[in-house]
Amino acid sequence: MRRRSFVKNSSLKALAISLLGSFPWSTKSFAAVKSIRVRSRRIETRISDFAGFGRDHKGHGYRMAFTPGDIAGRKWFIELMKKAGLDTSTDEAGNLIGKRAGKDSSLKPIAFGSHIDMVPDGGNYDGTLGSLAALEAIEVMNENNIVTNRPLEMIIFTDEEGSMIGSKAMSSEITDDILQQVSHSQLTIAEGVNAVGGNAGNIGKCRRKKGDVHAFLELHIEQGGILEKEKLEVGVVQGIVGIEHWDITVEGFANHAGTTPMSLRQDALLAASKLIIAVNEVINSVQGSQVGTIGKIGALPGAYNVIPGKVSLGLEIRDLSSEKIELLFGKIEERAAEIAIASKTKIGFIRQPSVSKPALTDKGLQQVINKSAQLLGLKTKFMQSGAGHDSQNIARIAPVAMIFVPSVGGISHSHKEFTKTVDMTNGANVLLQSILAVDGE
Amino acid sequence: MRRRSFVKNSSLKALAISLLGSFPWSTKSFAAVKSIRVRSRRIETRISDFAGFGRDHKGHGYRMAFTPGDIAGRKWFIELMKKAGLDTSTDEAGNLIGKRAGKDSSLKPIAFGSHIDMVPDGGNYDGTLGSLAALEAIEVMNENNIVTNRPLEMIIFTDEEGSMIGSKAMSSEITDDILQQVSHSQLTIAEGVNAVGGNAGNIGKCRRKKGDVHAFLELHIEQGGILEKEKLEVGVVQGIVGIEHWDITVEGFANHAGTTPMSLRQDALLAASKLIIAVNEVINSVQGSQVGTIGKIGALPGAYNVIPGKVSLGLEIRDLSSEKIELLFGKIEERAAEIAIASKTKIGFIRQPSVSKPALTDKGLQQVINKSAQLLGLKTKFMQSGAGHDSQNIARIAPVAMIFVPSVGGISHSHKEFTKTVDMTNGANVLLQSILAVDGE
Repeated sequence: MRRRSFVKNSSLKALAISLLGSFPWSTKSFAAVKSIRVRSRRIETRISDFAGFGRDHKGHGYRMAFTPGDIAGRKWFIELMKKAGLDTSTDEAGNLIGKRAGKDSSLKPIAFGSHIDMVPDGGNYDGTLGSLAALEAIEVMNENNIVTNRPLEMIIFTDEEGSMIGSKAMSSEITDDILQQVSHSQLTIAEGVNAVGGNAGNIGKCRRKKGDVHAFLELHIEQGGILEKEKLEVGVVQGIVGIEHWDITVEGFANHAGTTPMSLRQDALLAASKLIIAVNEVINSVQGSQVGTIGKIGALPGAYNVIPGKVSLGLEIRDLSSEKIELLFGKIEERAAEIAIASKTKIGFIRQPSVSKPALTDKGLQQVINKSAQLLGLKTKFMQSGAGHDSQNIARIAPVAMIFVPSVGGISHSHKEFTKTVDMTNGANVLLQSILAVDGE
Repeated sequence: MRRRSFVKNSSLKALAISLLGSFPWSTKSFAAVKSIRVRSRRIETRISDFAGFGRDHKGHGYRMAFTPGDIAGRKWFIELMKKAGLDTSTDEAGNLIGKRAGKDSSLKPIAFGSHIDMVPDGGNYDGTLGSLAALEAIEVMNENNIVTNRPLEMIIFTDEEGSMIGSKAMSSEITDDILQQVSHSQLTIAEGVNAVGGNAGNIGKCRRKKGDVHAFLELHIEQGGILEKEKLEVGVVQGIVGIEHWDITVEGFANHAGTTPMSLRQDALLAASKLIIAVNEVINSVQGSQVGTIGKIGALPGAYNVIPGKVSLGLEIRDLSSEKIELLFGKIEERAAEIAIASKTKIGFIRQPSVSKPALTDKGLQQVINKSAQLLGLKTKFMQSGAGHDSQNIARIAPVAMIFVPSVGGISHSHKEFTKTVDMTNGANVLLQSILAVDGE
């Protein structure tokens, strides 16, 4: 319900809510920001060391979930987590969990973490930074003899890039359909979960109830170019966008490209081109961070000398608000109807199963992150996440928040992905301070 | 040279030339149009019978050159040609030739004919009508005891739809490259030519010199919808268009469709869409019958969630004038340069080997056809052929002309291709009368 009201609120009302926060933290906890800091060199070295797990023949990243690189990387983490004194285990979904006791074991834990798997030819920062920074936060607390009030849980989720199975299993029911999908590793997800020490047959057991986790925090690289372009250091994530897909078919009439005069054509590709431009215009016609993309196209029969009779397109729209996605799609449908009439074609839309619904982060936690960053002297921006993250699943059972740090050139899911050490350090410090601030209440 | 002057002439000068004609026929020969007529039923029956040669598993046409259907169809024709008293032979290129003596054997022959091969799933009229009408003209002359002054030659050319090997071999040099291409029959063209009774190793021997043929006439279905739409009965073909192809590459930057704001995108597909529309606008921006088509498109990487980084397109332009094709292409390049700048993409064109140069028909022969048709009470239109025909090759060695009759719905290269018996009959009568008129001089 919070999600809907967020959209409908006037900006003034939204501001009031965001200042109040929906989580019971006040600004008091920021009065005395802890002077402790993460160790920059340790993060940098570990990012570099960990990049060695999972490589393809070109030397590019190949650490997809359940592959040998993923399994070796997990062992490396387990060892360090144990060395850091964490009570380390693997849950039924294969999530790697390291628990650290707090002063009051009756309190619900503060959780934080990310993932270590990657897409093929993926980068060394996506997921890994958030996982290493979670470990770093624990180690710095150890080194400074800090014992929190609440228990802490460091979590490395299973297969974020493929199925998000780890965070989904922790927050909702998992169907057999999902478990039987084949992952990049060529194992089914069930086989993969078992291969990393989970128990797919019992996966329901790892599910947490709403309230079981006090708060969840995730540090991640931005994967976009906004922070870099605006010369900002930390992004305070307001939510993870919803994603909807449609398959579009434009039907004209395939005919001889030599003998059919221009005036007698029903060119499906010409009509599709007008629609592609219309989609772009509609997405840009309203204010906000929404994005809309035609990423797929095919034209039949596909020869120099035949007027295309049928074109298929793939449309994606993303936004923090489902209502806005539907509003934009409605406008696209209207434009399509006009184009179809003018071009004597038929344009049809088939909505695909929803990729993901929008997930808003907690406004109180947003403030914690923003103030932690500002007290560290960092310039921040409230922004959305255009990409999916485990946090969007955990948002079903707990207040969540995310910290973004800049990606050079906005590049991600590529071996060219890069985040500067100073930015990784900033992000890890914000994570550490935010954990302490949440615990301080 | 005539081709160039045709383009540059003012319309008045062009009219004067078209009235004078470039071939030495006057209107005298039309004073007494022969009262003989082709037999409508015979044409209709033979079209239907001949459709039985070469069928696929769906019962659709499958008489590609050198396939069993083509070979069986040739045998059927050879028998009828012999029965019609023609001196029938197969030349080195596999062209089927039937000769009929005239009063003066020192005169150069009048030739006429078409082809009997088809594209896969082709129709029963394309090529076949012109071949049957050529035979019909001979038979009607036989039945009316007409002996022409000049020798006559009925020709069925080899593999029009594939390589145009028959008419090319008769009019120019054939390279080994062409002979080694694999045809639809899975035989190389050389193997196919030999399979239908030719002699690929000696193919140069069938070549005719300029002047060896007095005139060449071809009846063909329009393969477009212009005559039908304008309720006209006969098209007098002014020429066969030239065809040029270009491969176009639009390079943007592939990026995450969720995390890359609309303003930071270099979307190759959005730019390509603008170019597709620009191509259409440029082609429509000048008067005439030119056509331009983008028939092929591919976008990489081709996923809902990735902004297309690279798009490839296939462009075709056809017109009777090479200069006009180049003028239009120049305008498209200009528009592409503007689009590239505005969209931060790179747009490149690679010209493909020329598909075919424009071939103008003889203006005197055009007049013969037009007047023959008008004297038969038929409504005519001077028009271009957007499709390629054997006549375009024979134009290198002889004055040529083509007669078009309507295609229902403008459909061709399809089992849905259809031409009414009345229109076939009209076309065959115009062919017969034109042969007699050319001979009458």
